[in-house]
Amino acid sequence: MSISPTGEGLRRALDGPFHDLKQRWRDEVSADEVVRDTALSMEEARDWTLDRVKKLAQRDFVTAGFPSAQGGTGTSAESVANFEMMAMGDLSLTIKSGVQHGLFGGAITNLGTQYHHETFLPGAINVDLPGCFAMTELGHGSDVQSIETSITWDPDTQEYVVHSPSPTATKAYIGNAARDGRMAAVFGQLWVDDEHQGVHVALVPIRDEDGNPMPGVTIGDHGHKGGLLGVDNGTISFEHVRVPRSMLLDRYGGVGEDGAYHSPIESKNARFFTMLGTLVRGRICVGGGAASGARKALAIAVHHGLNRRQFRRAGLGEEIPLFDYLSHQRRLLPHVARAYAYGFAQNELAQQLQRVLDQEDPGSPASRELETRAAGMKALLTRWALDAIQEAREACGGAGYMSDNGITMTRQDADIFATFEGDNTVLLQLVAKALLLEYKSTWGDMDLRGTASKTAKLIGGAFMERTTARSAIDRLVAVANRKPESERLRARGWHVQMFEFRESHIVESLAARMRAASKQPEDQRDAAINACQMHMIEAAKAHVDRIVLEAFIEGIEETADDYIKAILVKVCDLYALWTIEQNRAWYLEHEAFDPKKSKAITATVDALCGELRPRAKELAEGLGVPESWQKHPTEAVPPIIA
Amino acid sequence: MSISPTGEGLRRALDGPFHDLKQRWRDEVSADEVVRDTALSMEEARDWTLDRVKKLAQRDFVTAGFPSAQGGTGTSAESVANFEMMAMGDLSLTIKSGVQHGLFGGAITNLGTQYHHETFLPGAINVDLPGCFAMTELGHGSDVQSIETSITWDPDTQEYVVHSPSPTATKAYIGNAARDGRMAAVFGQLWVDDEHQGVHVALVPIRDEDGNPMPGVTIGDHGHKGGLLGVDNGTISFEHVRVPRSMLLDRYGGVGEDGAYHSPIESKNARFFTMLGTLVRGRICVGGGAASGARKALAIAVHHGLNRRQFRRAGLGEEIPLFDYLSHQRRLLPHVARAYAYGFAQNELAQQLQRVLDQEDPGSPASRELETRAAGMKALLTRWALDAIQEAREACGGAGYMSDNGITMTRQDADIFATFEGDNTVLLQLVAKALLLEYKSTWGDMDLRGTASKTAKLIGGAFMERTTARSAIDRLVAVANRKPESERLRARGWHVQMFEFRESHIVESLAARMRAASKQPEDQRDAAINACQMHMIEAAKAHVDRIVLEAFIEGIEETADDYIKAILVKVCDLYALWTIEQNRAWYLEHEAFDPKKSKAITATVDALCGELRPRAKELAEGLGVPESWQKHPTEAVPPIIA
Ligand SMILES: Cc1cc2nc3c(=O)[nH]c(=O)nc-3n(C[C@H](O)[C@H](O)[C@H](O)COP(=O)(O)OP(=O)(O)OC[C@H]3O[C@@H](n4cnc5c(N)ncnc54)[C@H](O)[C@@H]3O)c2cc1C
Ligand SMILES: Cc1cc2nc3c(=O)[nH]c(=O)nc-3n(C[C@H](O)[C@H](O)[C@H](O)COP(=O)(O)OP(=O)(O)OC[C@H]3O[C@@H](n4cnc5c(N)ncnc54)[C@H](O)[C@@H]3O)c2cc1C
Repeated sequence: MSISPTGEGLRRALDGPFHDLKQRWRDEVSADEVVRDTALSMEEARDWTLDRVKKLAQRDFVTAGFPSAQGGTGTSAESVANFEMMAMGDLSLTIKSGVQHGLFGGAITNLGTQYHHETFLPGAINVDLPGCFAMTELGHGSDVQSIETSITWDPDTQEYVVHSPSPTATKAYIGNAARDGRMAAVFGQLWVDDEHQGVHVALVPIRDEDGNPMPGVTIGDHGHKGGLLGVDNGTISFEHVRVPRSMLLDRYGGVGEDGAYHSPIESKNARFFTMLGTLVRGRICVGGGAASGARKALAIAVHHGLNRRQFRRAGLGEEIPLFDYLSHQRRLLPHVARAYAYGFAQNELAQQLQRVLDQEDPGSPASRELETRAAGMKALLTRWALDAIQEAREACGGAGYMSDNGITMTRQDADIFATFEGDNTVLLQLVAKALLLEYKSTWGDMDLRGTASKTAKLIGGAFMERTTARSAIDRLVAVANRKPESERLRARGWHVQMFEFRESHIVESLAARMRAASKQPEDQRDAAINACQMHMIEAAKAHVDRIVLEAFIEGIEETADDYIKAILVKVCDLYALWTIEQNRAWYLEHEAFDPKKSKAITATVDALCGELRPRAKELAEGLGVPESWQKHPTEAVPPIIA
Repeated sequence: MSISPTGEGLRRALDGPFHDLKQRWRDEVSADEVVRDTALSMEEARDWTLDRVKKLAQRDFVTAGFPSAQGGTGTSAESVANFEMMAMGDLSLTIKSGVQHGLFGGAITNLGTQYHHETFLPGAINVDLPGCFAMTELGHGSDVQSIETSITWDPDTQEYVVHSPSPTATKAYIGNAARDGRMAAVFGQLWVDDEHQGVHVALVPIRDEDGNPMPGVTIGDHGHKGGLLGVDNGTISFEHVRVPRSMLLDRYGGVGEDGAYHSPIESKNARFFTMLGTLVRGRICVGGGAASGARKALAIAVHHGLNRRQFRRAGLGEEIPLFDYLSHQRRLLPHVARAYAYGFAQNELAQQLQRVLDQEDPGSPASRELETRAAGMKALLTRWALDAIQEAREACGGAGYMSDNGITMTRQDADIFATFEGDNTVLLQLVAKALLLEYKSTWGDMDLRGTASKTAKLIGGAFMERTTARSAIDRLVAVANRKPESERLRARGWHVQMFEFRESHIVESLAARMRAASKQPEDQRDAAINACQMHMIEAAKAHVDRIVLEAFIEGIEETADDYIKAILVKVCDLYALWTIEQNRAWYLEHEAFDPKKSKAITATVDALCGELRPRAKELAEGLGVPESWQKHPTEAVPPIIA
């Protein structure tokens, strides 16, 4: 099962700085360790998943993200890369591990102190202490700030009392809760001496050694879900459950030995969103994981499209490979190009995460930029992944529907990626808000009234913070401007100009509308702001599109091999022009180009599909899905009944 | 669980001619009979499904489509309505019943003679004789004409010999095969005296009384699929299996008592596609069934959007119902509008089916028109259904992912509707071909070379066969043309003009390209035709869009109640403008309107969402999903673990 040298080269380029790590997965981890049998029942899937999470945790590189004191390397960027590789195997496994190591372990790491690290991380890492991340409640998901669970300081006993004051305060959809979790990182409103200090997190044991719920803890099982059958999501509620003072993850605030509340961050609001911000890695992982699912589905569909034939040319000759149909190329190759684009952008994002973490300055402008990018990327990558996996399924015809091939399970598991770690519709609005306020305001707060009144006069794309590729990009733009009109469509600098124009125009016109909305009479203001909602979402998309293109350009710059580079240039052409094509109504409305050019763009996308068709196999290999983890339709002929 | 009078009125309008029948389902059929528990394992789901198919078959109205001699009413239109209602309960049940009654029973009804009706239909109807429709093979799905299974006449024994000459000749994905089927309607190439007569269908027993495969028959189980777990899809292959002469469904051709082959249709090609054409009802059902799934998901999501609140307005007041967000209205209401549009069009299609069947003239221009419309509707309805169900899932957030609510299972089951009963990409090309040839050529044949060379000079939309609403439409167009520019966007006549312009321009320009392609040198001709493929697909879509709009207009005309009519007018505005908005790039490219108007269309879609928001509940009720068959997210709080 070796791949072509070109496939190998593309894989290396797309892996980028994570090549060695990702290659270890390919070389060392067998399908048996990470690919789930699609026919397992829910109970079997839960067993398999827990077992495999534990086994994988024994490999040092899998838990590399933890602090060095706990045997990790502290490199969050590598955690992201690990998550992406695991996601090419199975998404239940990835999410179960993500809950255990990323969320539960991550909360302890980022919100706890040395005491918490030493006491709880070893068990979190080796899964002796299965844990939950209990933030969402039945009543509040997107609006976490309004959760009802209370954490009340009792000065008499020096304990925190964790309580669910109403049915809607029940923690909901919590991974690891229904079956395996022993402890939960519980988000609740902290009250000290009748003063509200905002959302904090307490570690609460939820099951005893025998696996029974602890006194005062009620646990429910969500049972069967639309996917992720291996993850035991459940509900948890608390009836005045007491934990000692040391159980509050108090890095950003808690009651000191003096019995008084202390926090390095004054504002409740900023404190809460700073805490959430330290958990941004989870969001980055989810975007990357969905993209991995899409890569796998695309790899399978490309393989099938090259091998499957259907219909004969006018009564004669051989049957036609599906990939010879323009429609088939059109269905798959643009998605493949986007997989590359998002892959390069995701590498860049993971590195940015590492840089920000290394600065150790949460709440800094750099961290707000990171959170903006992480949110926008998560929303776009997960949306795209669902569409791409679906297209891959349909492109495989009936064979694609047989669970054996893994496409449908990937689609089902990835479905919820659009919702958890931040619902996409909400995230895109937060991205727009950050752009409007030029990253000056707290990240994560959904106060759109405040946003409207504070929206700056944005001129000349000042809000367009740059990715590192700026110099290369200026050069490309200059080159494009010297090209004759007829060659512009394939000039990268022209793509950049189009992406930038779309972003800056949408954001600037949004700013104007939002400022006007804020000046409306009181009773019309909210309606005026609400009317900007779709505009906000468009602004965020345009922003991320531009960032992705820049990352692709940088990824190409960093590719040493000229042959590989030349292929990537074409793939980038396809990504850029397809994106422009998809938005051509907007461009025509804003007279960025005329109808003739618009039609020429469509023709060029067609042409690029034809040009890349001979490289389809290698492009699919380059997506980096280990061969032995893929199952192809033709291999999935069913067992005979005796 | 009563619904509002407005909801009731909308339901009556949308049910149209099938209101009484559909109301019987709502009044008489309980959830227990048709709603599957989402947590059933595959085996349990198969048991449940078979049991429920049998039980439902005891109700006279469920099997109404069969000939009157067998106790039915012979009304295929009502079969379609039944299928649509069942699909609001469960899609496995619907497909299992569709295989048994629609496909197996339908093949016997339409391709067999009185002997077959009398001998096999009773068992097909009451499910004493579970049957398969064995057309697809591992090697050939979309290209049925190339299947390999042979049916060879043996004059010595007066038998047909059914044989699978290669592994790829194995019948694949066949419903009812893996577990329950006793007999199969097997499609194969008929050979009589070494002469090939094209594809015919023979009834072949595949299991004995004890459920074991018959001698020479090999059966496989596809096992777990991406959905439809209650349907036992499997493979079947034949090793020289012999059946008596009477087992060929020989209405359109077979060996007579004289030992010679006879057929009322000369050309093998025409014969085959005539036979397939008689089975068009299945395709109409599948489109309608997918739409029912979408209606159910939308009804649930609208309900949730009206009840669920998230985020508070700038620190004060009550939390905001999701449906107050423009983005939420935008996500759901246009889909609701489209559900109405497709519902009216589907009613029209079912009636057209009945008219064509009543004519008893297969292969007539009227039947070609029907097949074109059925294919185009199937492709558009199934595509839309998948998108709408997905949107509904995401609009319900995490709750939407819990299987209890039924949205995810509906999505998984409906997935394959894009593929079976004709893959959408293939069907749309067939629609375009029919338009290009003005319905003059055999329906169903994918010969694009032939099409290119025969493409007529299409001028002035001569190919636009009319739905019955023509006079109403002429009136609307005249009215629109008298309106001032500012009121045009909401003038139905303007919508009609826009839809017609798009269809006629795309089809005419396609015709020009295809004719040009046919004049290319031999070695470039296929490439030139292939380059038209996306254009063909667009032509088909534009065609169906226009037909749907006309059906909506007619549906409104036929609504007696003025209050209901006024609501439907707005819903139709939303359907029409949203469709124009989605295609505005094309309109701008063809200068049908200018950028200013294009932006005004988007603003009007926003405005219509706001205007319909107060009627969201009633609109959802009007979709006609029995209340007791729906489960809503808030009801789905999970059971507590002891
Ligand atoms: C399988 C699964 C695993 C999970 N694991 C965990 C876990 O381990 N720990 C944990 O804490 N949580 C977990 N969650 C919860 C998850 O994070 C939430 O479901 C998610 O945050 C969305 O919240 P919600 O479900 O309450 O949806 P809501 O917030 O109610 O949103 C519902 C819909 O309303 C829309 N909406 C909401 N607000 C707005 C607005 N302002 N403007 C426009 N539209 C809006 C959204 O777009 C969405 O479509 C999990 C969920 C699932 C399904
Ligand atoms: C759950 C299920 C139930 C089924 N039940 C039955 C049954 O009971 N009886 C039965 O006979 N069959 C049944 N089928 C088979 C079904 O009808 C076929 O899967 C379907 O016809 C598609 O054929 P295929 O799978 O071979 O796909 P293919 O024909 O191989 O098509 C694969 C892909 O290639 C594309 N493609 C093919 N030709 C072209 C072209 N000319 N131009 C552009 N693109 C093209 C298609 O768009 C598709 O995306 C069932 C299938 C499933 C999955």
